[in-house]
Amino acid sequence: MSVHNPLLRSEVLASRYDEVRAHTRSLIEGLSDEDCQLQSMADASPTKWHLAHTTWFFETFVLASLENPPPPFDPAFKVLFNSYYVGVGERHQRNERGLISRPSLKEVLEYRDVVDQQVRKAFAAGGFSDTLLALVELGLNHEQQHQELLLTDQKHHFACNPLWPAWRSSSRDQAPQAGRDQARQFARCEGGLVEIGHVGDGFSYDNEGPRHRVWLDPFEIQTRNVSNGDYLAFMAEGGYNRPELWLSDGWDELNKQGWQAPLYWRYRDGDWYSFTLHGEQAIDHEAPVTHLSFYEAEAYARWAGARLPTEAEWECAAASDLPLSGLFDEVWQWTNSAYLPYPRYQPAAGAVGEYNGKFMINQMVLRGSSLATPPGHARVSYRNFFPPQARWQFSGLRLARCI
Amino acid sequence: MSVHNPLLRSEVLASRYDEVRAHTRSLIEGLSDEDCQLQSMADASPTKWHLAHTTWFFETFVLASLENPPPPFDPAFKVLFNSYYVGVGERHQRNERGLISRPSLKEVLEYRDVVDQQVRKAFAAGGFSDTLLALVELGLNHEQQHQELLLTDQKHHFACNPLWPAWRSSSRDQAPQAGRDQARQFARCEGGLVEIGHVGDGFSYDNEGPRHRVWLDPFEIQTRNVSNGDYLAFMAEGGYNRPELWLSDGWDELNKQGWQAPLYWRYRDGDWYSFTLHGEQAIDHEAPVTHLSFYEAEAYARWAGARLPTEAEWECAAASDLPLSGLFDEVWQWTNSAYLPYPRYQPAAGAVGEYNGKFMINQMVLRGSSLATPPGHARVSYRNFFPPQARWQFSGLRLARCI
Amino acid sequence: MSVHNPLLRSEVLASRYDEVRAHTRSLIEGLSDEDCQLQSMADASPTKWHLAHTTWFFETFVLASLENPPPPFDPAFKVLFNSYYVGVGERHQRNERGLISRPSLKEVLEYRDVVDQQVRKAFAAGGFSDTLLALVELGLNHEQQHQELLLTDQKHHFACNPLWPAWRSSSRDQAPQAGRDQARQFARCEGGLVEIGHVGDGFSYDNEGPRHRVWLDPFEIQTRNVSNGDYLAFMAEGGYNRPELWLSDGWDELNKQGWQAPLYWRYRDGDWYSFTLHGEQAIDHEAPVTHLSFYEAEAYARWAGARLPTEAEWECAAASDLPLSGLFDEVWQWTNSAYLPYPRYQPAAGAVGEYNGKFMINQMVLRGSSLATPPGHARVSYRNFFPPQARWQFSGLRLARCI
Amino acid sequence: MSVHNPLLRSEVLASRYDEVRAHTRSLIEGLSDEDCQLQSMADASPTKWHLAHTTWFFETFVLASLENPPPPFDPAFKVLFNSYYVGVGERHQRNERGLISRPSLKEVLEYRDVVDQQVRKAFAAGGFSDTLLALVELGLNHEQQHQELLLTDQKHHFACNPLWPAWRSSSRDQAPQAGRDQARQFARCEGGLVEIGHVGDGFSYDNEGPRHRVWLDPFEIQTRNVSNGDYLAFMAEGGYNRPELWLSDGWDELNKQGWQAPLYWRYRDGDWYSFTLHGEQAIDHEAPVTHLSFYEAEAYARWAGARLPTEAEWECAAASDLPLSGLFDEVWQWTNSAYLPYPRYQPAAGAVGEYNGKFMINQMVLRGSSLATPPGHARVSYRNFFPPQARWQFSGLRLARCI
Repeated sequence: MSVHNPLLRSEVLASRYDEVRAHTRSLIEGLSDEDCQLQSMADASPTKWHLAHTTWFFETFVLASLENPPPPFDPAFKVLFNSYYVGVGERHQRNERGLISRPSLKEVLEYRDVVDQQVRKAFAAGGFSDTLLALVELGLNHEQQHQELLLTDQKHHFACNPLWPAWRSSSRDQAPQAGRDQARQFARCEGGLVEIGHVGDGFSYDNEGPRHRVWLDPFEIQTRNVSNGDYLAFMAEGGYNRPELWLSDGWDELNKQGWQAPLYWRYRDGDWYSFTLHGEQAIDHEAPVTHLSFYEAEAYARWAGARLPTEAEWECAAASDLPLSGLFDEVWQWTNSAYLPYPRYQPAAGAVGEYNGKFMINQMVLRGSSLATPPGHARVSYRNFFPPQARWQFSGLRLARCI
Repeated sequence: MSVHNPLLRSEVLASRYDEVRAHTRSLIEGLSDEDCQLQSMADASPTKWHLAHTTWFFETFVLASLENPPPPFDPAFKVLFNSYYVGVGERHQRNERGLISRPSLKEVLEYRDVVDQQVRKAFAAGGFSDTLLALVELGLNHEQQHQELLLTDQKHHFACNPLWPAWRSSSRDQAPQAGRDQARQFARCEGGLVEIGHVGDGFSYDNEGPRHRVWLDPFEIQTRNVSNGDYLAFMAEGGYNRPELWLSDGWDELNKQGWQAPLYWRYRDGDWYSFTLHGEQAIDHEAPVTHLSFYEAEAYARWAGARLPTEAEWECAAASDLPLSGLFDEVWQWTNSAYLPYPRYQPAAGAVGEYNGKFMINQMVLRGSSLATPPGHARVSYRNFFPPQARWQFSGLRLARCI
Repeated sequence: MSVHNPLLRSEVLASRYDEVRAHTRSLIEGLSDEDCQLQSMADASPTKWHLAHTTWFFETFVLASLENPPPPFDPAFKVLFNSYYVGVGERHQRNERGLISRPSLKEVLEYRDVVDQQVRKAFAAGGFSDTLLALVELGLNHEQQHQELLLTDQKHHFACNPLWPAWRSSSRDQAPQAGRDQARQFARCEGGLVEIGHVGDGFSYDNEGPRHRVWLDPFEIQTRNVSNGDYLAFMAEGGYNRPELWLSDGWDELNKQGWQAPLYWRYRDGDWYSFTLHGEQAIDHEAPVTHLSFYEAEAYARWAGARLPTEAEWECAAASDLPLSGLFDEVWQWTNSAYLPYPRYQPAAGAVGEYNGKFMINQMVLRGSSLATPPGHARVSYRNFFPPQARWQFSGLRLARCI
Repeated sequence: MSVHNPLLRSEVLASRYDEVRAHTRSLIEGLSDEDCQLQSMADASPTKWHLAHTTWFFETFVLASLENPPPPFDPAFKVLFNSYYVGVGERHQRNERGLISRPSLKEVLEYRDVVDQQVRKAFAAGGFSDTLLALVELGLNHEQQHQELLLTDQKHHFACNPLWPAWRSSSRDQAPQAGRDQARQFARCEGGLVEIGHVGDGFSYDNEGPRHRVWLDPFEIQTRNVSNGDYLAFMAEGGYNRPELWLSDGWDELNKQGWQAPLYWRYRDGDWYSFTLHGEQAIDHEAPVTHLSFYEAEAYARWAGARLPTEAEWECAAASDLPLSGLFDEVWQWTNSAYLPYPRYQPAAGAVGEYNGKFMINQMVLRGSSLATPPGHARVSYRNFFPPQARWQFSGLRLARCI
């Protein structure tokens, strides 16, 4: 958000606050109290927890910093809905979030309402300093991240029910990619001494900067994302049974987990189907393949005689005027870059400095955004990151190769 | 149930059916949909699952055997709510019962209503053969067992919430024992060649028979259950820190789990408190100690210079006219008997034969009944059983000693 | 050992000491320093450890109690070679015994020699009180137990080498059973109010007493042990694939471990072979089946329409004049009795009281003895015990049935 | 090795072969057969295995490719001593290498001798093509890597013995660093568009190339390695108890493992001591700190207000004429670079292509070399790599900072 006039900036943020918060609420339409309680693994939080934690963020980092802060909605929430901020104090165990039946969903929604009113009141009173406005903006971007997680987590929870229940009846998971009719082409990028990292006045996370120079040799990048049809060819050629295609850790993980297809895929009656938030659906050969681990994406690239792009290559290509489709809003695209700090990286001050920096190990960077990413959230410098074995995000790939 | 007239027997069972089923429903008063969804460990099932599984029992073993069986409420329930009956087919994984948000609690209660109507209709039509009446009776006893498990499981689920929510405000967990004013005395039992095992026409599980002879040397048995006050003395003398008091496996378990008090106990501000279904309560020194593992009960007995009774001693003493209090309705009492078949034991025919026999290993017998046992469910020959490390039942002890 | 004259008793024990200690040494002929170092699992100790620990027993419980005890061979051995005696102090971790390359085998054998000389010197000087003589006798029986464990452990260690090395070339593992030509018959035992438990002046462990009365209904017991041929019929009828034949815990263990045959069996070229201490050998159909867990023995019995005997039945039958073969020196025979204290059981005084009593949970009793049991070690009241999943002992079964 | 004349190249390699192989043999002086058998964790192989595996490399990749290859020493060794080369076939399980008592150490040394004779014979006959000479050279570098691993692994094995045995009496572990008297200074490096990666005709691993351009902003790098004294200051200021200093995964690992000091350190009688290959030694404050995980090195850097260098920074600084001491032969220096392929990286052809590339995930790069690295093995472009939690290598750090 690049608005220099403080008053205007406050107005714009107030309005955006309402939009983002309302969008979160819209996501739980069709979910029952019980649905919102589920936790299928430590990495995936209950929907109720997402609703509460995003609210906790505003209460803890914004409201509590006001000159006359409102009393906390419930003092116990401070621990219960802290995710990982050591600077804020104790936290409830991550893998036991699904055991919190009380507060109920109803109470959590009340919590949201009360905090929303308090935030709006502060907006109306002009009570937010520039620092607090920046934290509101961070909180809104934080909430948008949780909007996506809420969907991917809920999908994982539902998938553990042998009945494979549908969240809603409309179809959003398997949106065909824009470049469906595009041939499988590569576009050339000259590279050189380029700059990457966030630029301009708009919002960005601390991990997207500082903008800095990187040397890139010329390379080619695929004009669209790898499709289900492409990936089925890899499977048909024994991709999951040929150790020479895999990183050693990937091959171990494959065997440990019994992977033979992307997450949520099921073979029956001669065809592949997958579980989506809208129930079981036949695989669309033209749609981008998704729910791949880094290991699968990397093995696919090797099989295809190509490689994954680095994040600098991806950003350079995405920022240039190449005819690339599906960079955003389809699938997150694995890169072959480890999630590490940029040169001269400095975490934000205070507890929110724990947002990004402390996770810079054991994770690989994904670029772009997925169909579950809220509109307007991602940008070309955006760095998403997950461990190489993670499959429950909407994660796919596009290929690159040297020239 | 010892009623020989078939018509009368049917009438009595029909009436009992209504009572038992209604009692189950009464237990969930005060619980939300979310509360009923919780599963804190593989051994403890969600309340919703208990509600469904007990209904599944009648649908699968009784209604499906009618000459014109009603259609199944939902074919998917056959797998979803089977506990462990291999004879019935596949089962959903025990440790993932808490991930079933659909069917909802509302649907499960409908399931109960529909099955109840079908059972009542069959009663009214006189459609139950003697064999099916016996299965109805088994189903009611089965449901009563689950009534107790529902409470102990729900207690465990709630205890994982750091807020320690209360199920209801009344106080049932810490009922003072009848013999509160009784001195710590032992009663003498002559033993000899006695008979144990179920006798008479009333209902019993297959594992309570056949009645058979056992030789018992004379022994003494405590006239009341060990109290919290007694147990605090054991703790004060370092009971949890003296390996010589413990079985080797018990000492290992203690160290692995960090046991320093019975389950649900918490020390703060100079006193011991425990979590109950009615919230946190101060320890009542006169109430029987409960939530002990077999290991703790056995170590306590060694510390006290006594031992646990065998199940034959317990039954012999309980069936005699000794002045014993608290045999029933206080706490289950650990014995030093392994859960093994009686001589000439035969499992019941059909899939219900899996009810008891296949668990006759790695478990110790508890006798009596607890404050959570439904009225009229237990009897002197009743054999309860749990692994020696289990602590989430209302399990305590009374001492015995040789003469 | 029933010798009342103290002088004579000392002489007899001194001579027996030499025999038993020499027998242990004879067992390691053919083993290299490296062989004696192996530890394949926490339950199986290295041969070197057995050699040292049995010596530690004499040093700790006998020599250290002399009026003028010799200095310890090496003070560090006190911790290093203590198995589980809490009364003696700290112990080295059981699962890391295989990481002790120093002291070397050579030093451990020196340790044996030095302790042997000290014990002999004390014998010669008449320095052993009655109490110490009793501990010497216990130590010799203890060492005999470790002689058998040394063989079963070493077999397990070797089996983890894909080359399946042979200990020696002679053949001892698959000794044909005495009753090879005997029909599969049952002998009838009248039971009644019988006595079991050790009787007489000879040596016995504390867990074999006190002798006490037990009521037994009449029963039948197989005149020989179940053979490999018998067991192959069970396997041919799908024994390992039919859950209805198994205890619930047994079925879980079978699936977890992937059991499809007894331990050490391998199918190739149309026949079954097994690993023995003398290398791979074809299965002898007439030899008693061995390396079965309790679960397998129990499932076999159910398949055969019979059951396992209780330990009281076994002892009663073995002490009677029935035409039973293979009670001793073939395979340990699983019973359906849990390993629990006899009525009025008292552990021996002092640290040696930890020998037996503290393991009286989670184990099942085996009776008889195996081809690996040292001659003269077992007797009719002898109680061996292992957890129901243990398979690395020479464990088989004979059937029983009610009349 | 940069020798263009083939004949000369063969002669030089033949001579180097003898040296390297003899050096390996010299490392086991003072170790017993039992010492060489130890395996303390899956990551650390027995010394006997290192001796056999390095020989297997020559037999499998060199001798077997001769026109008239000699018969294999033992066909079973092909599987037994394969480390991870899928292209060569099956492998014995990594975590069970310590269970191979046969072949004995003596046989493995014979294996070495026989293969050495065969290699020498082929050298003498001029039988090695250029390709095979290259594989001999790779094999020698491979063996040198295992020389270092043999020492670090043997140190770990010995450390599991509570007696902390010494390998030899001389002192090599705690060599004081060259720059002991040097102040704690930083040297400035201008960076710019620099080249890194192997250059020239000498030997290098495939992962050190291709040489390529990298942009570096100016930075400073410490002129010597962080010392034990420096690290003790970090410990004294609560370094192990302040989560804000640690990466999230590092903090989790610290708590899981209970880290409170570098590996092998022990506090007693008011001072810190560490286990070395020469027994327990007092900590030398001036010696470089070692046996740190990446997490500890990274947390130390944050505490010190600095950071770890990237591998490009390290290489650029090391290749320049800065006054840096301890780059080599002291401790491996953790960098903040993930172990990933260089641009245009191509694995070597054939099974030896599995040497490096398939491990390019989940590891961090270390640069330099340690006191355990064989002389002449390392170079400025050398990339060592281990997972961030690994501590059993001689791993330390030097700091860097932005300008």
